[in-house]
Amino acid sequence: MSLRDEILEQPEAVRRQLGSESGAATLQALAARLRAEPVDSVVIAARGSSDHAAIYGQYLFGVRQALTVGLAAPSIVSLYGTSPSVGRSLVIGISQSGASPDVVAVVAAANRQGAPTLAITNDPGSPLAEAAEYVLDLAAGPERSIAATKTYTCSLLALARLSAALGPAAALDPAPEDPAGGAIAALPDALEAALAVEPEVEELARDLAATDRCLVLGRGFEYATAREWALKLKELAQVFADPYSSADFLHGPIALARPGVPALAVVPESPTRAGLVQTLTTLRDLGVETVILSELPDVRALGWRSIALPAGVPEWLRPISSIVPAQLLAYHLTIAKGLDPEAPLNLSKVTRTV
Amino acid sequence: MSLRDEILEQPEAVRRQLGSESGAATLQALAARLRAEPVDSVVIAARGSSDHAAIYGQYLFGVRQALTVGLAAPSIVSLYGTSPSVGRSLVIGISQSGASPDVVAVVAAANRQGAPTLAITNDPGSPLAEAAEYVLDLAAGPERSIAATKTYTCSLLALARLSAALGPAAALDPAPEDPAGGAIAALPDALEAALAVEPEVEELARDLAATDRCLVLGRGFEYATAREWALKLKELAQVFADPYSSADFLHGPIALARPGVPALAVVPESPTRAGLVQTLTTLRDLGVETVILSELPDVRALGWRSIALPAGVPEWLRPISSIVPAQLLAYHLTIAKGLDPEAPLNLSKVTRTV
Repeated sequence: MSLRDEILEQPEAVRRQLGSESGAATLQALAARLRAEPVDSVVIAARGSSDHAAIYGQYLFGVRQALTVGLAAPSIVSLYGTSPSVGRSLVIGISQSGASPDVVAVVAAANRQGAPTLAITNDPGSPLAEAAEYVLDLAAGPERSIAATKTYTCSLLALARLSAALGPAAALDPAPEDPAGGAIAALPDALEAALAVEPEVEELARDLAATDRCLVLGRGFEYATAREWALKLKELAQVFADPYSSADFLHGPIALARPGVPALAVVPESPTRAGLVQTLTTLRDLGVETVILSELPDVRALGWRSIALPAGVPEWLRPISSIVPAQLLAYHLTIAKGLDPEAPLNLSKVTRTV
Repeated sequence: MSLRDEILEQPEAVRRQLGSESGAATLQALAARLRAEPVDSVVIAARGSSDHAAIYGQYLFGVRQALTVGLAAPSIVSLYGTSPSVGRSLVIGISQSGASPDVVAVVAAANRQGAPTLAITNDPGSPLAEAAEYVLDLAAGPERSIAATKTYTCSLLALARLSAALGPAAALDPAPEDPAGGAIAALPDALEAALAVEPEVEELARDLAATDRCLVLGRGFEYATAREWALKLKELAQVFADPYSSADFLHGPIALARPGVPALAVVPESPTRAGLVQTLTTLRDLGVETVILSELPDVRALGWRSIALPAGVPEWLRPISSIVPAQLLAYHLTIAKGLDPEAPLNLSKVTRTV
């Protein structure tokens, strides 16, 4: 299977995970445990693309469950030998291979403290799965390309399903967009719709073929998409892609904005929309070529170029579909630059960092 | 005062904060409160350079106090209208101006939940100071240049002093590098020593004048330095500087490594040293020009070029001194490129993001 095959397989990979009985049972068991013994916070340990899934988790559990979510600095455990107290936290490790020793170390240390631990991995026999009390199989099927695509969307899906199983925080009224079951079940169709823009994306990629630097903007739930999009552009198309929350962007990196350095942005319907539109208007006035990913025609009209996202996906699930056209753009830009998407420079599939 | 004046003033700014009686009293009061009502975790809200101080805080309170530290996503409060539960956390807002509404919103929401809150700001009359129960004045003096320098080092210092006041976690034995008072008192001298490399840095900047893209590596405590160094290179010298923990770097961005794209790295004595040396050796074998910031002559010898850090600063305080030669390099690279360090493109001093 090629990288493109794996991108196109994502609706099927999502269906596979949703159909897994053992996954549903694990989520129910963990949710019951957390109702009986509530936690104050969530700590997530991950690297690379999985760390971008963790960023999604920060907004997901923050907005829907009103939990404080911390992204672990794994080296505090693995190199400095300290085990920060996580007694009242749910600790999640995310790794497609389940093999990175630093992520395993965070989960193992939490387990020793008696905290509930969850491994989200594509290999239920991996060291990460061994170290955790609960294991959720990504069920993405083997991912052979070095650049992660379907394991990323399946990691987001696993987190979204956990959030749905936990239910909204008692303090949140009205409950945001529940019941969640229907929206999650509709995701494979949304991913099919997201893939349908491939011809326009391929044409856009040819127009961007000379790009060696770009900015990538997103905020809130879609900050994860901006980070993951930038990583695909780096590892596949060798573009210096600098990802920013539009808030942080105004605190310095906007100095890099200029014609010839395109700004890619994910701007769906969201409380973050007004600020992003303002930033994009500023960038347009500076002569920057803007490429806007949105389901909203009036927002897309602001861009130098734009890509349509599928409509009807609630904000908390949208990152699962909005990364798909972004992956396609990174893939076709790689081809347009004459590079090999199956052989990113200097990389191997399983990276074991301590 | 020019940017260079503010960089050179840092030993004096640090002395000023250390000499403040009100600051010492605040730290003692907050430490007493936290001994009486212990917290499980620390949540820090910040943007821009202050967010890099927050990253330092993550390692500082993680390694020295064994506390889980989460970096807040301010928009969860300011845009999505949720107040994640922080009942058992110390919540810190860091902002030189104290004027960014999103950071203020996180601290105000925590205050309403009864959590202890601390503002670290250069303006004790700011909205952030108003919102917090405890206020620590950076005492950096007015910072007129748009690029933050002395307020960054003073923010790190404020966090380090809080860590020293809290004392090591009972579980940590032996206590790392305590008593801390002497090491903190020696910081102004270390900053003087760090400034002494300016002539070599100026020469190096001329050699790097054609650079428009670079990689910046650090790990552990010095990951904050890598992030802040990259931001100075972006906002002042208009270099696409991509900062990475050396662990995350191997999970994708190493695809960008090539001759003509220098890799800058902070590699002091630390448990992170072996991994960084391995990564730098890989980069050297790929023909990448490496610039190494270290107090260790044998590590510096690995680099294409190197800059000496002052010796004798313990690891948990070292980021306060190691950013100084990094600031000087960003400043002199700006001059070498014929740009104006007092007028970074598209930026203003106080950025109010919601």
